[in-house]
Amino acid sequence: MLAGVCRCDPLMVDVSTLRSSYFTEKKKTELYQELGLQARDLRFQHSTSLSTRNNCIIIRMASLKAILTPTFLLVLDFRGLGLERWLVLDLAPQLASQTHSLPFEFRALEAILQHKVNTLQTRLNDLEPGLLDNLESLVDPKILSADRSKLHILLQNSKSLSELETDIKVFKDSLLKVLDEDEMIEELCLTKWTDPRVFEESSLGIDHAEEMELLLESYFMQAEELGNKARELKGLIDDSESVIFINLDSHRNVMMRLNLQLTMGSFSLTLFGLIGVAFGMNLTTAFEDDPRAFWLVTGFMFLGSGLIWRRLLSFLGRHLEPSVLPPIPPIWKRNLKSSDIKPGVR
Amino acid sequence: MLAGVCRCDPLMVDVSTLRSSYFTEKKKTELYQELGLQARDLRFQHSTSLSTRNNCIIIRMASLKAILTPTFLLVLDFRGLGLERWLVLDLAPQLASQTHSLPFEFRALEAILQHKVNTLQTRLNDLEPGLLDNLESLVDPKILSADRSKLHILLQNSKSLSELETDIKVFKDSLLKVLDEDEMIEELCLTKWTDPRVFEESSLGIDHAEEMELLLESYFMQAEELGNKARELKGLIDDSESVIFINLDSHRNVMMRLNLQLTMGSFSLTLFGLIGVAFGMNLTTAFEDDPRAFWLVTGFMFLGSGLIWRRLLSFLGRHLEPSVLPPIPPIWKRNLKSSDIKPGVR
Amino acid sequence: MLAGVCRCDPLMVDVSTLRSSYFTEKKKTELYQELGLQARDLRFQHSTSLSTRNNCIIIRMASLKAILTPTFLLVLDFRGLGLERWLVLDLAPQLASQTHSLPFEFRALEAILQHKVNTLQTRLNDLEPGLLDNLESLVDPKILSADRSKLHILLQNSKSLSELETDIKVFKDSLLKVLDEDEMIEELCLTKWTDPRVFEESSLGIDHAEEMELLLESYFMQAEELGNKARELKGLIDDSESVIFINLDSHRNVMMRLNLQLTMGSFSLTLFGLIGVAFGMNLTTAFEDDPRAFWLVTGFMFLGSGLIWRRLLSFLGRHLEPSVLPPIPPIWKRNLKSSDIKPGVR
Amino acid sequence: MLAGVCRCDPLMVDVSTLRSSYFTEKKKTELYQELGLQARDLRFQHSTSLSTRNNCIIIRMASLKAILTPTFLLVLDFRGLGLERWLVLDLAPQLASQTHSLPFEFRALEAILQHKVNTLQTRLNDLEPGLLDNLESLVDPKILSADRSKLHILLQNSKSLSELETDIKVFKDSLLKVLDEDEMIEELCLTKWTDPRVFEESSLGIDHAEEMELLLESYFMQAEELGNKARELKGLIDDSESVIFINLDSHRNVMMRLNLQLTMGSFSLTLFGLIGVAFGMNLTTAFEDDPRAFWLVTGFMFLGSGLIWRRLLSFLGRHLEPSVLPPIPPIWKRNLKSSDIKPGVR
Amino acid sequence: MLAGVCRCDPLMVDVSTLRSSYFTEKKKTELYQELGLQARDLRFQHSTSLSTRNNCIIIRMASLKAILTPTFLLVLDFRGLGLERWLVLDLAPQLASQTHSLPFEFRALEAILQHKVNTLQTRLNDLEPGLLDNLESLVDPKILSADRSKLHILLQNSKSLSELETDIKVFKDSLLKVLDEDEMIEELCLTKWTDPRVFEESSLGIDHAEEMELLLESYFMQAEELGNKARELKGLIDDSESVIFINLDSHRNVMMRLNLQLTMGSFSLTLFGLIGVAFGMNLTTAFEDDPRAFWLVTGFMFLGSGLIWRRLLSFLGRHLEPSVLPPIPPIWKRNLKSSDIKPGVR
Repeated sequence: MLAGVCRCDPLMVDVSTLRSSYFTEKKKTELYQELGLQARDLRFQHSTSLSTRNNCIIIRMASLKAILTPTFLLVLDFRGLGLERWLVLDLAPQLASQTHSLPFEFRALEAILQHKVNTLQTRLNDLEPGLLDNLESLVDPKILSADRSKLHILLQNSKSLSELETDIKVFKDSLLKVLDEDEMIEELCLTKWTDPRVFEESSLGIDHAEEMELLLESYFMQAEELGNKARELKGLIDDSESVIFINLDSHRNVMMRLNLQLTMGSFSLTLFGLIGVAFGMNLTTAFEDDPRAFWLVTGFMFLGSGLIWRRLLSFLGRHLEPSVLPPIPPIWKRNLKSSDIKPGVR
Repeated sequence: MLAGVCRCDPLMVDVSTLRSSYFTEKKKTELYQELGLQARDLRFQHSTSLSTRNNCIIIRMASLKAILTPTFLLVLDFRGLGLERWLVLDLAPQLASQTHSLPFEFRALEAILQHKVNTLQTRLNDLEPGLLDNLESLVDPKILSADRSKLHILLQNSKSLSELETDIKVFKDSLLKVLDEDEMIEELCLTKWTDPRVFEESSLGIDHAEEMELLLESYFMQAEELGNKARELKGLIDDSESVIFINLDSHRNVMMRLNLQLTMGSFSLTLFGLIGVAFGMNLTTAFEDDPRAFWLVTGFMFLGSGLIWRRLLSFLGRHLEPSVLPPIPPIWKRNLKSSDIKPGVR
Repeated sequence: MLAGVCRCDPLMVDVSTLRSSYFTEKKKTELYQELGLQARDLRFQHSTSLSTRNNCIIIRMASLKAILTPTFLLVLDFRGLGLERWLVLDLAPQLASQTHSLPFEFRALEAILQHKVNTLQTRLNDLEPGLLDNLESLVDPKILSADRSKLHILLQNSKSLSELETDIKVFKDSLLKVLDEDEMIEELCLTKWTDPRVFEESSLGIDHAEEMELLLESYFMQAEELGNKARELKGLIDDSESVIFINLDSHRNVMMRLNLQLTMGSFSLTLFGLIGVAFGMNLTTAFEDDPRAFWLVTGFMFLGSGLIWRRLLSFLGRHLEPSVLPPIPPIWKRNLKSSDIKPGVR
Repeated sequence: MLAGVCRCDPLMVDVSTLRSSYFTEKKKTELYQELGLQARDLRFQHSTSLSTRNNCIIIRMASLKAILTPTFLLVLDFRGLGLERWLVLDLAPQLASQTHSLPFEFRALEAILQHKVNTLQTRLNDLEPGLLDNLESLVDPKILSADRSKLHILLQNSKSLSELETDIKVFKDSLLKVLDEDEMIEELCLTKWTDPRVFEESSLGIDHAEEMELLLESYFMQAEELGNKARELKGLIDDSESVIFINLDSHRNVMMRLNLQLTMGSFSLTLFGLIGVAFGMNLTTAFEDDPRAFWLVTGFMFLGSGLIWRRLLSFLGRHLEPSVLPPIPPIWKRNLKSSDIKPGVR
Repeated sequence: MLAGVCRCDPLMVDVSTLRSSYFTEKKKTELYQELGLQARDLRFQHSTSLSTRNNCIIIRMASLKAILTPTFLLVLDFRGLGLERWLVLDLAPQLASQTHSLPFEFRALEAILQHKVNTLQTRLNDLEPGLLDNLESLVDPKILSADRSKLHILLQNSKSLSELETDIKVFKDSLLKVLDEDEMIEELCLTKWTDPRVFEESSLGIDHAEEMELLLESYFMQAEELGNKARELKGLIDDSESVIFINLDSHRNVMMRLNLQLTMGSFSLTLFGLIGVAFGMNLTTAFEDDPRAFWLVTGFMFLGSGLIWRRLLSFLGRHLEPSVLPPIPPIWKRNLKSSDIKPGVR
């Protein structure tokens, strides 16, 4: 009652001995014969799948490929995938623990699903703080122009989030496919079919299929919570982008108003400077020898510029903040209040 | 007929005595034995759940964790969550009231669901006025640039709204899961199974399962109304953002036109000022001694500037409001009217 | 065979006498007893609901609350809601008409559903022309900046449309809930259960449940058409906003080009004006007494400015309309044509 | 075996004689009696419907209203709707053709559904080339500002597309309603119920209900293809709008850079022109008689302006294209490649 | 046991001889008679379909039209579609291989579905690298204005992606239609019905219908993975567009600030230059002969300009980065952390 795989390193957990897990190598064909499977049963075509064949549960969760029988769990091709730590530290104790009164396949399936959910959760946890920091600094109203390296990171985060959402969706769909078919849930309860004695002993009146449904549902809901979280983050990115745009636009408007005010000043100066230019011409003006003329003309130039500028500025003020606009009543607030749902009526 | 929990403070409401609720402490393991539950039944893994185990209803609604039996309601770990007020002032009277002819579990379940809906409603009510005020001031057409602290608040409101939407959805899903399975509704009617005598006495010909369905449906619909409300607010934020953008763009266009008009003026002045500069050169012009030359040239400078500016302004006016555009017929109005649905035909 | 309500004014339509409707007042508790209902049956918690209790149909459509028995229709709390006109002018004749060979509850239910659909249709009809006029004037390509009071109206219209969409959806959902359960449709056919004699007489071989399904389906489809209409209007608002943005952006680009052209002119004049300034310095130039120098230098200044400006303008023209861009073939048209679906093949 | 309608002009196609179709007029009430229908059966409330009543199929497809019996097809109210051509040229031959071994109602239903699909297809075909041409010219990168009349056309096209999408959806829903109920499909096979002899003769072992399902499914799929097409066009409009915005923004940035470069030039000239202005003052400078002073100062003015301008331009260049930005690795490409799905694995 | 088609070139693969495939031509009518089909069975109206008729599977996957019987596979009209290579190199070996213990129709169906999935995968693979390169260069923060030819390519890529998404959806729907009806799956297992002996021999206790379901499900899931991929790419385009907009806006803001700073400088110079112009007037100032006056006034002009400019710049700095803004606490981070889902709880 053990197995191995060609081209790959299986982990064998023999539940009957409950010794620590050990590693072995076997030909794929031998494995087929021992388990009564066919070659195409172990092709693991899809990135996430959960199916039964000949009283074996065949699971693939991304890089983790496993075969589960009523008495042992085979993890295939686990080298080079960063799974070793999990196999030794987490999986072995989980499989050996006897707290459950439920048979082995429940413990093994739970360990694998938990591993998958933890992986998804870890990816979300890795993504979230960086994303939030990045958004926080991008929506900072003080900055005039968005930091472009942060935008690049945002784009990458957004992409990672999309991929995470897809993976969560695929995981949920693979569980849902099982949950939607009562027959498949029954097939997942391996002990029920193979070892009626153990089944009766262990069950203590518990319905295995119902327990299996609860187990799968629980992980489905955990995945759903992760999906909700990811969706909220996506929404936060969208909202932040709007705020970034409004911020940039606001900055631009403020600068444009300043620019316009200065252009008004320059225009005024140019207009009255023309008087000075005129008096600078080598032409006879009859004022050449009047000692007060210089002060009068210069004063007129500066005062005139100042007055015209003030006129222009106040014109701009009126133009941008039109008081002719009729006071618009905040209609929507009243509407909303009247249609309020009263709590605690029942 | 009482219970307690280790690490936590349960509230016990003993329905048989109907005295005021009292507080007690017990070991978790004792609690399991008394209720015939297992450790994993009370893990409360999901933020919102509603399930039955061994004729107990196990409920979690965010921070509120409760076990409901046909005769009493246990609220677990209630300290430090702001639930005390509700426990004493609202829950106890609701459980004690005898207006319902329905058994205890209906009253208790209703009190808990009502508490959850009220919590959601309160969160929406807390959010809405601030959000509306904020939007109202952001879409104010008079402002030139969006107030950035208001944008920050908007972002937080938007985020809170997303979280609220998720919570409403999770609550609705947990009810829907029960409503979709007739078996689960039956299991929620605890009295029906445990106390046939009370069941027959109290029911007066009422079908318990149907009443339970109505109860759950009623709270499902209240949650749906909250969800609709939240969705409308989300839509309002989106629409307001569009209006903010149009407002900012409009302001910019107005300022740009003013700027362009002034640039035209400056250009005119510079062009004709060049004449003055030319006459200011230390070069022989043959007009040096002509007493009318000064007035002629100065007048030409100012008049010329003015005329050129006027030309440019009218050119701008024609450019921006092209009259060559053929009058576009308002096609869509007629289309829409012809496809009108006539009311009251049937 | 009549009823009244405390705190409210019921309208009683006694179908057996077919006299004009009359108004009465009764205690709520009396009403319960007469109809065999319980207090909680008449709480009308949800804004839209349609249910049966003890051979009564209990309906709420927003402000309209009604109880329908096989022989009469009670409209509750109708005062102050603008329902009087409808009650007297429309409802009474509809209930009295005998064109239907179907029993009373069909006529009454149809009248109420028709009233609801008419209300929704009226709201849409009130909204649509103003919204279209508003959009029409906002997308007018001649305007440089969006009229802000029109934007405010647009925002309110958009909000009203969202609320209308929600109400249509809620109405559709309440009908769909009935349509999805054959049992509920059966229960709505009151006469079938209460008055087998009338049932057999009136039916003439017609299946009441099927007629009821057709009736509800018909109003469901009318609501769906309204919903489609509202959705199209929402889409039109979105599309118009895009066009408004493109319009504003286009105006800005046109103004910016004009501004740039003038800036080019000013730059040219400043550049060559510097020559005049140079000759205006009180420094020895050796040309002071050359009578042609003035004309030469002045001519050079103006001609030079003009030439440089022309260079700059043509440079701008080349810059904005690059002819180096390879002619991009309109690829997509061909693609689309090749994948055309040929009509009339079958 | 013929019929007519008051207020309207029915087309009668008598299948037993198979003569060319002829036109007749009848009272609506007579029509009811002949067909055993009731007034409300022929109200044609909804824009699209397909139902059976008393062994008649009652169809409405927008303006086309028809009653179909096992032996003839009545087209009602066909005048003034542009249906005449179709009735004479297309419908009559289709009904008369004997290629089908299936009974008359199949041919007639197919002719009507084909007419509807053709109408929808024609609307799409009419819309598509204009829309694509319009988009093609709007996304042209050479244009500085969007042509506003084209935007107006785009808005109308977009609206027409929305309406077309709604009509396709309504048509699909009306077919789906029938396809979802096996009973309704059975009812559509009129011959099966009325003329068992013809049924047995014509069928040749073919299951009528299955044929009817295939017929309806085929038109459902044709409508789905049209819907997909319309959806793709909608997406194309959205994508094009984004490209238009990017184009306009790009033009603006290019113009702004040019403007900024010129402003830098003007600033430099003004700064060094100030020297000239200073030397133009009527104040003693001690250089008045130095013959080299003029050339030195003038040269300094022009050279200084040029140098400062060059400094500013290179500063701008560095500012806009910061080389300090760390080289961002194109991370996402590698990610995407590693998660590639390998084709042809199975 | 062979067939041919008029107007088209069928490929006949005779499975009983297992010789290499050969090509033949036949009249369509002969083909019908041999296979017992009718003309309308071979119209291939829809771009993608999979159905059974008279124990033949009739398949269309875009340009590939095929008829599958228990003993041979006919590929119709294959010339000029680029299918020859696939027919000779891939299809023939796949059909001849005996690794499967399953009958011929499984191998043939698998070959065709694999061909379809490969075609879709190839289209995605062709599209993806170009699209990513294009996006990568468009979101490059260094560029000031988007390259318009790249935008054109983006638009075409986006369109191709939409079409690919539609095709994947249509393929998935056609498989789903079969998977949803157990009857249709049974009908696809041709051997089961025709050759019970072969069926019993080959099956070795395998349930054909279940195998067929697994086969179809496997390709459904492969198509789903492609669909997920395409959706992610679409999302990436949208996100990139937002980043492009933010980039362009940021550039504009940076340029506008530079422009504003220079305008401030020009204004300062103009203001103080006016003093120089004033002293250049041919008017008596009493300072004409003061040797220090020139240096004092000139110094005042330049120093004054510089000081005013500095004032203005620092004003701008304060204006754009207001320190009066209260420090906004990064509220959302704490919220998010508190609502964290703890992994590994169960």
